[in-house]
Amino acid sequence: MKYYFTHIIGTIVMDQSLRVIEEVKFTKLDDYFSKAQTEAKLKKKYPGLIPLPEDKLPRALEHFKDKNYFSDFYSQNVALTRAGIRASVSKDGLILQTIGNIEELDKVCNLLVKRLREWYSLYLPELSFRMSSHDKFVELVLKKTRAELIKEFRVVDSMGGELKERDVQEILLLASQINNLYQLRKKQETYLELVMKEYCPNLLELAGANIGAKLMELGRGLKALALLPASTIQLLGAEKALFRHLKTGSRSPKYGVLYQHQLVQKVKASVRGKVARGLADKLSLCARLDYFKGEFKAREFREELERKFK
Amino acid sequence: MKYYFTHIIGTIVMDQSLRVIEEVKFTKLDDYFSKAQTEAKLKKKYPGLIPLPEDKLPRALEHFKDKNYFSDFYSQNVALTRAGIRASVSKDGLILQTIGNIEELDKVCNLLVKRLREWYSLYLPELSFRMSSHDKFVELVLKKTRAELIKEFRVVDSMGGELKERDVQEILLLASQINNLYQLRKKQETYLELVMKEYCPNLLELAGANIGAKLMELGRGLKALALLPASTIQLLGAEKALFRHLKTGSRSPKYGVLYQHQLVQKVKASVRGKVARGLADKLSLCARLDYFKGEFKAREFREELERKFK
Repeated sequence: MKYYFTHIIGTIVMDQSLRVIEEVKFTKLDDYFSKAQTEAKLKKKYPGLIPLPEDKLPRALEHFKDKNYFSDFYSQNVALTRAGIRASVSKDGLILQTIGNIEELDKVCNLLVKRLREWYSLYLPELSFRMSSHDKFVELVLKKTRAELIKEFRVVDSMGGELKERDVQEILLLASQINNLYQLRKKQETYLELVMKEYCPNLLELAGANIGAKLMELGRGLKALALLPASTIQLLGAEKALFRHLKTGSRSPKYGVLYQHQLVQKVKASVRGKVARGLADKLSLCARLDYFKGEFKAREFREELERKFK
Repeated sequence: MKYYFTHIIGTIVMDQSLRVIEEVKFTKLDDYFSKAQTEAKLKKKYPGLIPLPEDKLPRALEHFKDKNYFSDFYSQNVALTRAGIRASVSKDGLILQTIGNIEELDKVCNLLVKRLREWYSLYLPELSFRMSSHDKFVELVLKKTRAELIKEFRVVDSMGGELKERDVQEILLLASQINNLYQLRKKQETYLELVMKEYCPNLLELAGANIGAKLMELGRGLKALALLPASTIQLLGAEKALFRHLKTGSRSPKYGVLYQHQLVQKVKASVRGKVARGLADKLSLCARLDYFKGEFKAREFREELERKFK
């Protein structure tokens, strides 16, 4: 009767009294991953070879008290960890970074546009009042001169001061930078859709790129999202209201980020909770289909929901 | 004996019993600004014309109860306000907007660089650890490929995942945008110096562009800054600590934004309060010299301070 025991740096074969007969070392991490081959070879060499029973493990491990093993264990362990980290970089990571970045770009653009409005208002304050859309404001500032704007918006006797060409130039630099940020945001949204189309087509179809990615962010990845119950998905993004509900007994929230979904937006307020529940149900199915590489069913789900909540 | 009374829409001449003899209307705002001319003309026409004594004002004003005056008063008042607002746009405004924008750009760049570091770490995590300077990090990401970076930083067995060209491209888009923002920041700093050199050369010389503009921002303009006592200038930017001191009796602050000034930075901690006091003293003089268009003395001040606190 002989035993074998495979560990991270090799396989050892021991006789009945647990003395080592043979030791096969793994030189690469790949050897460890294909340890079954090594074991099969040894089984051929020593007929009647069986895995070490668990109760004998403590005594067998004494073999490794030898300090010569320590550095091998260390380096092999580090390599294994590295490989694990490397493998953990998946599309999840890319999607989460992209949606995070899109949200930050929104924040950044708003901050800079507010400054632009204030600054440009030294020059032509009337424009900021008459153009409330941020991106159009930036476009107008960039494309038209003050005289053109005064004409277009029929400004009589503007309250803005006369600025030198040099001073206006500085404002336009900021405006063109904001414009670039807007364009970057658009590009990253396209990219987000592209990645999601390959990785989680069902979620993309039913939730849309922004809400879908936001759900993944809140659920911490597609796998975790797929394992969440639908009722949790319904409330993702409403954590604050949920805990207030649990703590103070205020009314429970009906939706989190799903509130922005057009199916929920379209119906009247009294049935929104119901729609959000139905939607979360289907989204949970979508996440599962995507994670386990199932078929594409999101379009059916969407039609079903639309029929139900017309 | 005849009286005249000038108001915003004209000058009226009245006899002793306050009946109106003649009324000169101002058709433009400029007429009002040059009212002295109109008054001189009338004085020639009516010898012995004197300004309306104050005790007769209430009775004279009854003349304006006539509703016909109302729209004229309204439009002339609006025009006057507009002119006032227009005139209030001075270099003060430009400097305050620019320094505000520079501070916001710093905030924005930090936010985006943090995202870039996290995102790029999916690809080559070792770089973020080894390059702590934000702007150099962005530069490296933009200029060098992953292979070049691995070579340059001698990364063995990187933990980053393999990304597709398309995914890397998206990260680089963000990096190049951050780089543009850095460049914008540099340009606006140059511009700030340019404007300050014309408007407040003394303050610029002694405080530097950033601290000088920051002081103007905290003091709300050059005029207000010039009127502040030196001890207030010393503590601008330390409001929180000052009120904590007043409220709880904790130690009083010794400097606000002046802490960043190189004169204060150069000396050892125990004399920093003293240096800040001396510096604030001279800065207060600088602001006054600049506001009242005095001569350029900042260089002398700086040398004096340097001699004193060597």
